[in-house]
This record gives sequence, structure tokens and C-alpha cells, in this order.
Amino acid sequence: MSDTFVVVGGDAAGMAAASKAKRDDPDLDVVVFEKGEWVSYGACGLPYYVKGEIQSLDHLVSVTPEEFREERDVDLRTGHEVVAIDPDDRTVTAESDDGEVVQSYDHLLIATGAAATVPPIAGTDREGVYTLGSMSDGKELREYVARARGGESLQQPDRGPACQYLETCTGPVGIVGGGYIGIEMAEALAANGFEVHLFQRGDAVLTGFSDATSEAVADHLREQDVVLYLDAEVEELAGEDEIEAVVTADDRVPVDMALLGTGVRPRTALAEDAGIEIGETGAIATDAYRETSAPDVYAAGDCAESTHVVTGEPAYVPLALTANRHGRAVGQTVAGTPTEGGGIAGTAAVKAFDVEAARTGLVGPRAARTAGFDPVTETITAKSRAGYYPEGGTVTVTLTADRDSGRLLGASLVSEYGEGAVHRSHAIVGAITEGATVADLENYDLAYAPPFNTTWDPVLVAAKVLSGTLR
Amino acid sequence: MSDTFVVVGGDAAGMAAASKAKRDDPDLDVVVFEKGEWVSYGACGLPYYVKGEIQSLDHLVSVTPEEFREERDVDLRTGHEVVAIDPDDRTVTAESDDGEVVQSYDHLLIATGAAATVPPIAGTDREGVYTLGSMSDGKELREYVARARGGESLQQPDRGPACQYLETCTGPVGIVGGGYIGIEMAEALAANGFEVHLFQRGDAVLTGFSDATSEAVADHLREQDVVLYLDAEVEELAGEDEIEAVVTADDRVPVDMALLGTGVRPRTALAEDAGIEIGETGAIATDAYRETSAPDVYAAGDCAESTHVVTGEPAYVPLALTANRHGRAVGQTVAGTPTEGGGIAGTAAVKAFDVEAARTGLVGPRAARTAGFDPVTETITAKSRAGYYPEGGTVTVTLTADRDSGRLLGASLVSEYGEGAVHRSHAIVGAITEGATVADLENYDLAYAPPFNTTWDPVLVAAKVLSGTLR
Repeated sequence: MSDTFVVVGGDAAGMAAASKAKRDDPDLDVVVFEKGEWVSYGACGLPYYVKGEIQSLDHLVSVTPEEFREERDVDLRTGHEVVAIDPDDRTVTAESDDGEVVQSYDHLLIATGAAATVPPIAGTDREGVYTLGSMSDGKELREYVARARGGESLQQPDRGPACQYLETCTGPVGIVGGGYIGIEMAEALAANGFEVHLFQRGDAVLTGFSDATSEAVADHLREQDVVLYLDAEVEELAGEDEIEAVVTADDRVPVDMALLGTGVRPRTALAEDAGIEIGETGAIATDAYRETSAPDVYAAGDCAESTHVVTGEPAYVPLALTANRHGRAVGQTVAGTPTEGGGIAGTAAVKAFDVEAARTGLVGPRAARTAGFDPVTETITAKSRAGYYPEGGTVTVTLTADRDSGRLLGASLVSEYGEGAVHRSHAIVGAITEGATVADLENYDLAYAPPFNTTWDPVLVAAKVLSGTLR
Repeated sequence: MSDTFVVVGGDAAGMAAASKAKRDDPDLDVVVFEKGEWVSYGACGLPYYVKGEIQSLDHLVSVTPEEFREERDVDLRTGHEVVAIDPDDRTVTAESDDGEVVQSYDHLLIATGAAATVPPIAGTDREGVYTLGSMSDGKELREYVARARGGESLQQPDRGPACQYLETCTGPVGIVGGGYIGIEMAEALAANGFEVHLFQRGDAVLTGFSDATSEAVADHLREQDVVLYLDAEVEELAGEDEIEAVVTADDRVPVDMALLGTGVRPRTALAEDAGIEIGETGAIATDAYRETSAPDVYAAGDCAESTHVVTGEPAYVPLALTANRHGRAVGQTVAGTPTEGGGIAGTAAVKAFDVEAARTGLVGPRAARTAGFDPVTETITAKSRAGYYPEGGTVTVTLTADRDSGRLLGASLVSEYGEGAVHRSHAIVGAITEGATVADLENYDLAYAPPFNTTWDPVLVAAKVLSGTLR
């Protein structure tokens, strides 16, 4: 009899694992339990759906449930919520409208993902308070936008400052949190004519990026008429049934709606109840093959820890590529070829209106010191293309290295959208993953031609300057 | 008495060395002999000057002779041609309109650059035959374009197919050679309304790039109404005083002018005459510090060899970044801090109308086999941004690796202009420089967000596919 591979959760990690396992070992029985109706969707695209640049939620789905069932021969059971895992009996229990099923497994993948956090403040349950963690969240937000615009169709105007395209601006909205979701949603809502107020608890947006990047993005948000509140701890989302204002220690800002973009937390309850080890980060602990403390039980994606390529320590950075890659690695392992999915570098990218930014590795001094390094940082701003070339802007690059070893630890980059901060970060991901020094990076023979960069690409300029500081 | 550092040649390598040496050791006497009037100019920008996107040759100059003399305290002698080097006496002899000078040196840098080659065919001396190796070449070509257009000002129209902007197309022109210069000049001339005929000796443009890249660029050139002749050995540039036709075995194509873009050869005569060793590549041989066979005599830039980071063997790839970096390293060494300038990866980038391409490392099977590898290659085409994102195109990535070790050897990428083939090559330069395997690259935690790429960046998709082939 052939083995059974059971997957809990049908998004990136789960479906990548299911598909890969079945493709590599067609004899395997692959069963996926997904509590919702959507599988394998690009949640990263939700802000652009709300913005109106994507016309249907279906466009975010890379593979449909029918395709998984019919073309990939995966026994996908949507509408099935797994309520218990028994690692001793090697079974999971799932509930659906049809009742309860107990499914035995030979290999199990927990891919339960993460949930948008709701901060512990008053009023988060008021009408008009949204999060953006799921497809249905995206649907609700888009419906809100359409309603607020009086049913006007969501045709995406050109990018630009809020309110300039519409005859009437729609009412003020509040965004709590200046991370990726907060910033992408600021763009999405401003493009639809909303007056956007963005509240960030710390003194900078984009925590984890360099100060230079955060400041460049903050300046640009202001240029785009986003009203930015830094060091602004939100105390209450005030109102009656509906939200009426965002309240901080200093302000009471009237709003018609509020979006919570305050991060995510891993969904670990199932694993915890089954006695599976949870790491210090709060996510499910795994080894390099994503196997948990329970034999033949794997965890991957937004519910699980990864290993950081610079520190070598467990880290929790729930992003799409890692979920996809680790899911795929588990599928390959289960199908008979043990595969490590690789570490994470904490790399992330974001578009904020007409600016793009990326970060990777250890950027701020605190993270580097915690990991035992003595960080030295330099920030440079350089032209993104040859100075004489008719197009172009600037790229600001922050590089951090360890003083003694010269080892490159991390970077943060920002540029105008299209001027390459994000793709340039690719070079640095490679360097930090390979344990390269700043001097190594300085000598990389990067491509050069006037329409793409200066003779020394801004990344090399930054390496040259930091190298000088370290000498 | 302070040391004297003499530099022969005032372009990228020479002026980088002079500036860096003087900055690091202000007591040093730094003397630069340059036979022309221009120093430190961006020859890579010449096609865009001819095109009309850059309005003055001065804009290509990064530092003027006055700035070198007055701000950087470099004794720059333009109009001085060095005619002899005597490594035993440690002197160079230079000629100028004022006569001959003999200058002694403690350290010498030969930075004589490269000259555009003129193929050994009849008619290259006819009027209307141009090369593009120097500022004066650029000036002549621009004057030709202006004359041919009846003195119409060179306002750059939007990019697009030839002849669509002007009321009358100007007469056919021939370009001999389908490398960077040939292709960039095809764009420059087509944008000015010329009917462009491009002749390439081999069966593909962009020798050294992958077949997939070369074909994509060739297809695009044809889309832009460039008439492409492959496998077309030019036998004669026919005519009376003026060129009238490009003649191949198969064709006789009437043209009003012809541009030779058939590569460059290192200017080594001075070094050879001085008994300095020339490498097998035909360029001046150096060690890792760019020191030649003569003590305290360095060579850098387009006249010198470099070491290839993949093969570890000498290679001749005359490009701007290497010239700049090696010149700077020599300056630093001469000023007392011995510095290796690093190897080269043979990285190059080119824009061809609305397409961009890059290559790095060992791409074709022949180069890899010659270096002792057993090459395996895969080519993929993938979306440049999330499929659901409203903007975007495709990136085609060719990756080559060694079968036994899995070591990544090289890559070639092509995309629409702005879709990131060039900046994406940065990741691969790092990987091949660090000796990474394809499996290593596959696990790089590259930045992802829908406006910039798919969850698996096309570079990772290529690594994943090649990894599968190698397994």
C-alpha cells in the first residue's frame, strides 16, 4: 500500500508541498485539508486588488482547486478545518459541513500560515475596522472602497498623489501600522481618492529597514499627501457601532474606516495542542528539513521558523518565497529525496507609491549586536544610471558589516520606482548568504552600461565607502 | 624627496590611479601623460551622444583637466604622447608640440587603453567609414548625423522603430559588427531616422551571450526595422572616394555611410617595445596587483589582462568598471596600501532599443569545456512581475553549471527594457564569484513583491530548473 501524505492548509507552503510530492512520487496519496474555499493564492497581491489594478480575486489564484484535483491528482478538501493532530496515532481530525473525518498519515505537513494580529486596544471590533490577511478580507475592503466611492468603478488612475483624480475625495481613513501592508494599502487607498492617515508606533516606518530607507519612504508618503503620525501609539478606535476616530495620546483623528496593518502571528494552536515544540520566536520549531519535534511531522510557511543565513539562529520571517520554497522542499523530502529548503535572509521588498525599497540580512545595529557582531554601517546616495543619461534617479544604499571580520551583514536600499533598489538587493542577498566580506562585494564584476547604472553600481559605491571605513 | 608616480594614458584606469594615489599620499608627485585633449571620459556614453540624448561631449567627462590639475593636484599633461618606456633607467619619453621630455618615475602605470579594430578588408579608408572608439570619433559621427538630417537639430524623439518620427528617412547606413557598439549604434542611428543595415560575421548577434539572448535581441532589432545580415562576412566597403555599398558574399547593400563595430585590440606597442611581457590574450600580462613583468611598472584598463573569477586564468575583457577599479587599486598600491583590484567575470550589459540584456561568467559550452568543466545549460522564460500585476513583461534566463560539482559557471539574461534582466544579473555575478552551486543559488532568499517579480524570481526559477536537470 502506498504512503499517505497529509497537508494541513492549502496556501503557498501546503500546495507547493502537495504538488511537488505528487509529481515526484505519483504513487503517494496526497490529502490536503483547507478550512476555506481559496487555495494557493497570492495574498501579496491583495493591496493591488483593493487598489483596483487587479480586477478579480481569481487573478490572484495561481492554481485552482479543480486543477489541483484533476490535473495534479491531489485530494484537496476545501471547507475542512483540522481540529486535532495525534502524532502517536498518526492521524488528523477534520471537521466540515459533512461532519468529522479522521485521516491517518505517514507524513504530515502543518502549513497553517499566520493570522493578521489585532492589537489589544479598544474598538477593534467596531464596524469599519479591517485587516488584510485573507482573500475575504480583500473582498470586504474592495467592497468598502467601492461603496465609499458611491459605486464608481475601480478603474485605476495613474499613480500619483491622493485625491487628484476624483471629483470628490472620499472620507478620511486610518491605517494602523507602517509596515508593508500599511504602506501598500496607503497607496491603494490614496489612489482611490481617500485622505489617508497612517499611524506608526515607532519613530520610523518600515521597521527593520535602515533609517535612510525609512526616512526616504516617509518623505515620499508625505509628498503623496499621506498624513503620517510617527511615535503614535493608537489607544482606541473610537465610535459607536461604527468607527469614528483613531485616538492616540496626542490626537483624535476622525476617520470613516481603519485598517489594521500591525503584523501577523503564526497559527500554532494545532501544533501546540499536539505537543509539538514551539520555538523562541513563537513559531513552530523545525530542523533544516522542516521536520518538527514529532517524527514525520513537518511545518513550513508562515506558521514555522526558519534559520537565518547570517546568524545561523532560528528566525521568524513569514513571507511568500520561504513558504513556497520550504513547502516544495518538504514535498520533495516526502517523495524520497531529502531536501533542505535553505535559510532565510530576512529579505523583503516594498513599493510605496513611486518609491521602491528592499532590505536583507542584519541592518540595524541592535540586530547585529544581538548576533554577536560589531556592526559598522555606511549609507550612500548615488545616481541610478550614468549621470549623462537622460533618464534616471538615485539609489540610497545602506550597508552593514562586522568590524573585525569585514563580513557583510545586511543592507537596505531605496530608489524611485523603476530605478532598481529591489533588484539591486539581489547581489547583496548572494553576498551575505555566501559569507562574503565587504571587500569581496566591492570587487564583484557587476554589469554596467549607461542606461542601467554608473560605472560603479551604487551597490559597489556603498561597498567601496564601507570598505574605506573598515580599513 | 618624494616618489614620482607616472601614468601613461588619461582615461578611466589612468585617472582613477592618479586621483587615488594623490588622495592617499599627498606627498606623491603624480604625472599623467595623455596624448589627446580629453581625459576621464565615459566612452560608453558615446552612442547616446550620437543618438542625441546627450547634448554635449562635455557631459561625458566626469572630471575635467582643470579639476585634476587644480583640485586634485595631479600634474596632467594633455597633448603629450609617450613614445618610449625605459624600465632600466625608470624613465618615459613623451613628445608634444613643445618637443620631447624625459620623465623619471618610481612607479609607472601603463593605461594606454584599446583601439577600435579595423578589419582587413578593402575600402575601410573611404570617406563615410567610421569607428567609435574616441571622443573625436563620437564628434564626427554626430556631425555626420546632423549633416545627413539636413542640419535638423538632434532632438531625441521617443524610442521606437526607425523612420517613424521624421518626415523623410535619411539614407541607408551599414553597421559592421553585432556587438555592443554595433547594437547601441543601430539604436542611435535608427532613432535619427536612418535605415540601418547590420552585418554580423557569425550566426548570432552578441557573441558570448546565450543563444536565447542573442535570438531575442535579433528578433527585437528586426521588429525595430533594422535589416539584419547574419553569417555575413563583409568583403568590401565599395565606392569611389566615398563609401557606396557594403559588399558580402551574398549581398551588395547600398549605404551612405558605414560604422565599424568590430571590437577593440589592446594598445600594447609601448609595453612590448620596453620588453614587458604580453599575455596569451594579446594584452599586457600582470599579477593580481596589476604589476607587469617589469618591477614597479603596472598596467590596468583596456590594455591589460585580468584574471577570470571562474577559470582563474588570464582573460581580456576591456570594460569600464574593470579599468576604473584596477586603476584605483594601482593608485592605492602605489600610495602604500597593496591592493588587488579583484578578478573579472566577463560581465556585460547592453540596451538594444526596448530590450536589455546581460551576461556573466562562462555561458556557452565551448568556453566552459575549454576551462575543464562539463557544462549543463538550461534556459527559462518567466514573468518579470507577478502575473496579476498590471505592468510587466518576461525575463529569459540562461544558466550554465558544471555537471559534476554543480558549480554555477555563468548566465545570460534578456528582458524588455526596464524589466530587470541587467540588475538581476547582479545576483549571479555574486554567486559565480563566490563559487556557489546552482543549489546554493536556488536557495537565495531574494526580495519579492508583486511589482518587482514573481514569488520565485526568474533567476530562482532558472536555478530550480537547472538544479532538477543536474539531479
